[in-house]
Amino acid sequence: MTDTGHPALRPLPMPDLGRSFPGPFAISPHAHAIEQQALQWLGEFPLISSPRAREVLCNITGHGIARTFPTADQDGLFLCADLLLWLTAFDDAYGEATGARDPAALVRRIAECVHLLAGHAEPPGETSVFGAALRNLLDRLRQRATVTQYLRLTAHLRDNLFGMLWEAQHLDHPELVSLSDYRAMRPHTVFVRTVMAAAEVTLDYELTEAQRSSAALRELESAVADLAGWINDLASYRKEAAQGGPAPLSLPTLLMRAHDCDLGEAFRLASRMCEDEAARAGALITDLTGTGDGEGALGEHARALQSIASSYVWHIAHSRYRS
Amino acid sequence: MTDTGHPALRPLPMPDLGRSFPGPFAISPHAHAIEQQALQWLGEFPLISSPRAREVLCNITGHGIARTFPTADQDGLFLCADLLLWLTAFDDAYGEATGARDPAALVRRIAECVHLLAGHAEPPGETSVFGAALRNLLDRLRQRATVTQYLRLTAHLRDNLFGMLWEAQHLDHPELVSLSDYRAMRPHTVFVRTVMAAAEVTLDYELTEAQRSSAALRELESAVADLAGWINDLASYRKEAAQGGPAPLSLPTLLMRAHDCDLGEAFRLASRMCEDEAARAGALITDLTGTGDGEGALGEHARALQSIASSYVWHIAHSRYRS
Ligand SMILES: [Mg+2]
Ligand SMILES: [Mg+2]
Ligand SMILES: [Mg+2]
Ligand SMILES: [Mg+2]
Repeated sequence: MTDTGHPALRPLPMPDLGRSFPGPFAISPHAHAIEQQALQWLGEFPLISSPRAREVLCNITGHGIARTFPTADQDGLFLCADLLLWLTAFDDAYGEATGARDPAALVRRIAECVHLLAGHAEPPGETSVFGAALRNLLDRLRQRATVTQYLRLTAHLRDNLFGMLWEAQHLDHPELVSLSDYRAMRPHTVFVRTVMAAAEVTLDYELTEAQRSSAALRELESAVADLAGWINDLASYRKEAAQGGPAPLSLPTLLMRAHDCDLGEAFRLASRMCEDEAARAGALITDLTGTGDGEGALGEHARALQSIASSYVWHIAHSRYRS
Repeated sequence: MTDTGHPALRPLPMPDLGRSFPGPFAISPHAHAIEQQALQWLGEFPLISSPRAREVLCNITGHGIARTFPTADQDGLFLCADLLLWLTAFDDAYGEATGARDPAALVRRIAECVHLLAGHAEPPGETSVFGAALRNLLDRLRQRATVTQYLRLTAHLRDNLFGMLWEAQHLDHPELVSLSDYRAMRPHTVFVRTVMAAAEVTLDYELTEAQRSSAALRELESAVADLAGWINDLASYRKEAAQGGPAPLSLPTLLMRAHDCDLGEAFRLASRMCEDEAARAGALITDLTGTGDGEGALGEHARALQSIASSYVWHIAHSRYRS
């Protein structure tokens, strides 16, 4: 150990993503309306009891979604924002440390959601406030989405809920998680594949199956999926580490173990990984939005992925992740 | 306690389902071929190490699927049988008591499957034999199914995997499970909704959204879903109870608690519940296959639900559930 100075005070290297995703990022004129509607929706479905936490979450969600889909119509933005609020509030209420303390209780909470996602609208038991809110979201989604869009999105929601369970089971045991396991599960816990699937519904286009399964698009989606999780990991590491207990279940922790290095070196490695993924994503977006391809749904989807990635790049600096 | 005689020797009342589902049940001419193909598939993907267990499972699966879809073509039957084999073998290998001992290990096993179900064909880490077999099944399913059929079926597979986790978390704590929780989750642990979704793929028809969401069809599917789980519970209770430990996570256990009654009375109640669901299902099948309705996909689906229900009725007597 040749480090000097208190580790908590040492600045950690962060990725430079401006080359691949240069700001300023476009923002929807509805940003304020999204925030107001989100507050109202949480009034109807009180998923968060603390008024302060509610305000903070609605603010970041409003600004985040306004950057995620800057050209979307208001109803699409409202639905998307409420969906993200729901996931985040569920994770905060029952996932993470709470879920790690009692995974069986988290499983029972998720069971209600699985019942609703499977389309059995009336759970035989009592409906929780999260169940009622999810039902509201699924009704609105059913109105707006095609059948396949609905099926895709609800599949991703199941994966998000499973991701929370996976995280809860490993939060206190990051040593049981390999880098490749982490890489496979992280997109689900950061909800990014759900956001990518929501793009079609929010912006009102539909990929053909051939477009969806093209190698370029799959590679682009996987680059954005990685990038989103890793950015979040770097942005929130300090806050998570400050909570004490085992090392955060986060990319830097796994890199320290894999490379037998210190936190600064792990951040350097992770930053490089982010920059590489951002460059890969940027190049694929350029390809897919170039002459010819840029016209149809594929070009539209590539532009959506660009603004989705940009919203995560924007998030890196937002206060939710400051201690 | 006014009971006399050793409880394990007392005969327990079983439902009389012959009025609603009178045998003999039609059986596919491919029954033997299904069994042979299943053995071959398990040779390629060795999911079960004991040769005896492999033979027993292929035999019951061959005979079960041949009764589930007596009119299906051979390829459809093979796919369906392998899917059921996979689910059963996964549950036997990692779910139930094994899952209850180490739910985090079960979560990691499921994580690989979720990755494949989400369509990310190459898991970043090593592929297990269950992963390789699942990939084979998904490839075959993609060949045969429409996009929506594929999405529906893979959603049900996720729900089955979640059901195994739910069961593992509660196997030693049936007291944490309410009757309504149980009723909501039981169809997923017995795989019956997956079988109902597989009907369209196996028999080559597709319901319209209007047909799928009709009240009569939803009620019929829910009756068959209940019936399948409850029949299995009654058929396997003795075997599960003989393993010792806490009371089986099974309908009779929950009914004993809810009604503060003994096992005989719980079996009487459960048998009555089965008979009522069978009667409800039988009447709906008669309606939906009657004049006019019986022609299109809706009639075809109702007939498929009839043979699916019959296969569970048939299962009640099969040796897998004898101690
Ligand atoms: Mg989280
Ligand atoms: Mg984080
Ligand atoms: Mg089982
Ligand atoms: Mg059983």
